[in-house]
Amino acid sequence: MHALQDLYPDDFSHCYGCGRLNAHGLHVKSEWHDGESIARFTPRAEHIALPGFVYGGLLASLVDCHAMATAAAASMAAAGQTPGVDQTPRFVTASLNVDYLRPTPLGPELELRARAIDIGPKKVIVETTLSANGAVSVKGRVVAVRMPETMRATPSA
Amino acid sequence: MHALQDLYPDDFSHCYGCGRLNAHGLHVKSEWHDGESIARFTPRAEHIALPGFVYGGLLASLVDCHAMATAAAASMAAAGQTPGVDQTPRFVTASLNVDYLRPTPLGPELELRARAIDIGPKKVIVETTLSANGAVSVKGRVVAVRMPETMRATPSA
Repeated sequence: MHALQDLYPDDFSHCYGCGRLNAHGLHVKSEWHDGESIARFTPRAEHIALPGFVYGGLLASLVDCHAMATAAAASMAAAGQTPGVDQTPRFVTASLNVDYLRPTPLGPELELRARAIDIGPKKVIVETTLSANGAVSVKGRVVAVRMPETMRATPSA
Repeated sequence: MHALQDLYPDDFSHCYGCGRLNAHGLHVKSEWHDGESIARFTPRAEHIALPGFVYGGLLASLVDCHAMATAAAASMAAAGQTPGVDQTPRFVTASLNVDYLRPTPLGPELELRARAIDIGPKKVIVETTLSANGAVSVKGRVVAVRMPETMRATPSA
């Protein structure tokens, strides 16, 4: 069983949040367990908001990449494929909603758990919790869409 | 006239997104202009989602820090203080909603513009747009709250 992100096609494995081919990235890794995906991440010292607490932008990034992998895995499972074994299709974020319930302490490993609550042919809605020391500090609700073909070409910047 | 984040108290200037004292951070800088704040940021090569496009977690981070500074500035202005001159009070994020309207190209400088649409004694709601080459690709709606006293102490992790 592989992390879902490690089974993205090579061309789409450069994501700063979760791409195995991004040397400077966060390398979020999500694993699929019976309808739920789980990721663990320990922020670095510089990922600080205020002294002692994790930066909210990092937390949003973790929610984002974990939710995209969860959307893909849930779609795969619905289609009879095996998440963590078969290639993971790439989803992109349409909207990201993050509620910061309480400050997240900097230091302990964080745990993210996510489930798809609605699986359509193109769009999947994912709900995520993030906890530290067993206490949920962040909730996320993310709308994921299958990567459109127009994103396959590099735009002229 | 200083960037709003450069006038946060020293103890609260370590934020990964916008703290002037975070050596590894993004250093988002927002300037106040007559009720609106503006920030400009050029992503680094590693801030990639898919080839040619900016990572959504970075975009959420830019929206977050820009909105917190905007909430502070709007509160200051409402209280008769001068944003960019007087010390900026620290707000923290209660909720972050980001809509990705279209992919954001990696390469050009990004521009964020934000306004407070509701200014309460403790809570400020901020709306933000982010554009590349003049085209808005991201919209954000952020609820900011005055930093609670409980965040002044470092928690035991």
